[in-house]
Amino acid sequence: MRMPGEAHAVVRRTHQERVLRALRERGALSRGEIADAVGLSRTTISEITRDLLRDGAVVVVDTDAAQRAGSGRPAERLALDPDSGQFLGVDFGHRRVRVAIADASHEVVASGGQPYSDSAGWPERIRTAFDLIDRLGDERGLHFRALHGIGIGVTGPHPRSSAPHAPEGAFGPGFAAARDDVDVAFAERFGASVIVDNNTRFAALAEALAGDADAENLLYVRLSDGVGGALVIGGRIVAGATGLAGELGHVTVVPGGARCRCGKDGCLETVASVPAVLAACRERGADVGSLDDLARSRDPVVERVLRDTATALGRALGAVAMVFNPAEVVIGGEIARLAPVLVEQVAETAGRELFPWVAAKPRVRCARLADDDGALGALAALFRRSPLLTDHPETAPIRALPA
Amino acid sequence: MRMPGEAHAVVRRTHQERVLRALRERGALSRGEIADAVGLSRTTISEITRDLLRDGAVVVVDTDAAQRAGSGRPAERLALDPDSGQFLGVDFGHRRVRVAIADASHEVVASGGQPYSDSAGWPERIRTAFDLIDRLGDERGLHFRALHGIGIGVTGPHPRSSAPHAPEGAFGPGFAAARDDVDVAFAERFGASVIVDNNTRFAALAEALAGDADAENLLYVRLSDGVGGALVIGGRIVAGATGLAGELGHVTVVPGGARCRCGKDGCLETVASVPAVLAACRERGADVGSLDDLARSRDPVVERVLRDTATALGRALGAVAMVFNPAEVVIGGEIARLAPVLVEQVAETAGRELFPWVAAKPRVRCARLADDDGALGALAALFRRSPLLTDHPETAPIRALPA
Repeated sequence: MRMPGEAHAVVRRTHQERVLRALRERGALSRGEIADAVGLSRTTISEITRDLLRDGAVVVVDTDAAQRAGSGRPAERLALDPDSGQFLGVDFGHRRVRVAIADASHEVVASGGQPYSDSAGWPERIRTAFDLIDRLGDERGLHFRALHGIGIGVTGPHPRSSAPHAPEGAFGPGFAAARDDVDVAFAERFGASVIVDNNTRFAALAEALAGDADAENLLYVRLSDGVGGALVIGGRIVAGATGLAGELGHVTVVPGGARCRCGKDGCLETVASVPAVLAACRERGADVGSLDDLARSRDPVVERVLRDTATALGRALGAVAMVFNPAEVVIGGEIARLAPVLVEQVAETAGRELFPWVAAKPRVRCARLADDDGALGALAALFRRSPLLTDHPETAPIRALPA
Repeated sequence: MRMPGEAHAVVRRTHQERVLRALRERGALSRGEIADAVGLSRTTISEITRDLLRDGAVVVVDTDAAQRAGSGRPAERLALDPDSGQFLGVDFGHRRVRVAIADASHEVVASGGQPYSDSAGWPERIRTAFDLIDRLGDERGLHFRALHGIGIGVTGPHPRSSAPHAPEGAFGPGFAAARDDVDVAFAERFGASVIVDNNTRFAALAEALAGDADAENLLYVRLSDGVGGALVIGGRIVAGATGLAGELGHVTVVPGGARCRCGKDGCLETVASVPAVLAACRERGADVGSLDDLARSRDPVVERVLRDTATALGRALGAVAMVFNPAEVVIGGEIARLAPVLVEQVAETAGRELFPWVAAKPRVRCARLADDDGALGALAALFRRSPLLTDHPETAPIRALPA
């Protein structure tokens, strides 16, 4: 007897979202006007608005007494409550937490970040996040009485249990620390349901929504302290059979090459991470700030290093793109921002690995979103949990955001 | 106003499927018994059974007069109509068509095949399929009065328009022939809705359902005249942004290697297709029949060729599996059947390309299904179109089939 409850919940959520959308698009409406706008019965609308009022998603703003010609009882007019934080997106990186808050209409109404040390344990990270959320709420006059959901991005594979024998530090400094109760801590504090996933996956989902309309199939790679990756297929994050999907950084690109922190040899991460690229450019004194200048001024060492990196990355991305056929390949992380020449070279190499006709070639581009990407993607994942809205453009609110 | 219709259709299909499942599991039932079994109102059950009777999916078998103690009017008892073919799966290969027919309860009730020449045009192929379907229907006393759907597998990328500039023969002899109206021909003949996709993708879906219960994430490769591939993620076929997903055969494995029929150099297909393997073993007079014997008797040339093939294939599969984290990697096609030693070697190589812990390693196995795989997968894809049943084990009927 599992299905009837589920089918009912699907229909109810769909109805709720149609009412919220009508209020977002048209502003304050009476219950009768809502019923006409969404094509549901007055009885159904009464039930839905009762729940939305109870949850603090909408408020009564006035009555239609002023506009009324007739003599009947004035009807209340309802509107979205702009002061109600309804969704929380949280991204725990290695050295900072970012938070984005969306209201009932899926509009992002506040966001911010707070650093911590990369040796900070989970109690401290969670405390930092709670303080940040309180501060953002106070600044904007937001309250969190009726959170619909919380999305939390973390580093490393998810679920954690998928990599029980990963060597210490294999997925960066924050990974080894226990984070098994981060969801419980948030659920208890806010009384809302929580989803947890890898923050690079959330960033990829945010990029898919921030990109062109048909970029629901996207391959994402982030060149940072390590090399992370993620896939979005049909607008959904791919987790894989054991939560390990997306580990593009550990595809072998140099058979028998340098030992990687994961325990394998010659992984993409050993040639394309920020530390690997800077180490290879050491003799030119390159740092993250001077990399693109050195490349553009045709410094031969830096040029060669970036070309080798681009070749390794382009081949790996090309092979994966041959199998996944994404609409876009997005390159994020510091290097992509600081050495855009790399992106051009990757596009060229990856293109040669693909069928020699146009429909086979994805667009290759730099990431568009800034450090908020993980928190925004966590929000998008929450919005997308409504199965009937999955294919609806309405679930792509990221477009409206300042990057 | 698109949503209400959709939501309603989802709920109606879900209800229909629950009624069909109850009849499949319990045999003949009265409307009252059905209502109790599935937890829906008598009114709703009356509407659903009216539609199912109209469509020929169920029939009235008797009344409960014999068992009744009271004096009321005897109730009709309904059962699935075993003589009703409700779903057609069709697989147009390069040199034959295969058909599988399922009844309303998703049980496969008939299947068969018919050869044609690989130069046969689409009118001939379609005629061959229609004749085969008529013959199977006559033999089993099946009728096709109320088909719920038809799934058609074809060779080459789908949609066809995704590869407009593919060189002649890039995807095998059948691909260049126009097949744009195959769906129209079937829709007109049977008055049912049609889905069309690549037949390797359908085979992969069938293998996912024929495999272990958690193999909803599967990477499939077929070593045949060419090398085809397909991905199943979360129980769904991956088509890609332009219908080109799965082309594992055209991942570069030998940079600067032999020219492939697709126009690129050093594709996996140039070393792992049946013709490529046999050509490399030519000096030992190997054919598809003697390949495994020669390998097992440690013929040095054949051993080396198979090892090289396994290494190339294992590396490509390992790289893709690192990004997509499948539960299973399935190797199909003649070579996998004829030289199982290859599968062992591929598993070893692919395993080395993956994280050195157990949860990161997919099971690598031979395909379990025979030549029916494409037609069975087309059926499974039809069954899976019901969104609320997607995650339900009930939608995995392939398990019950003789391979």
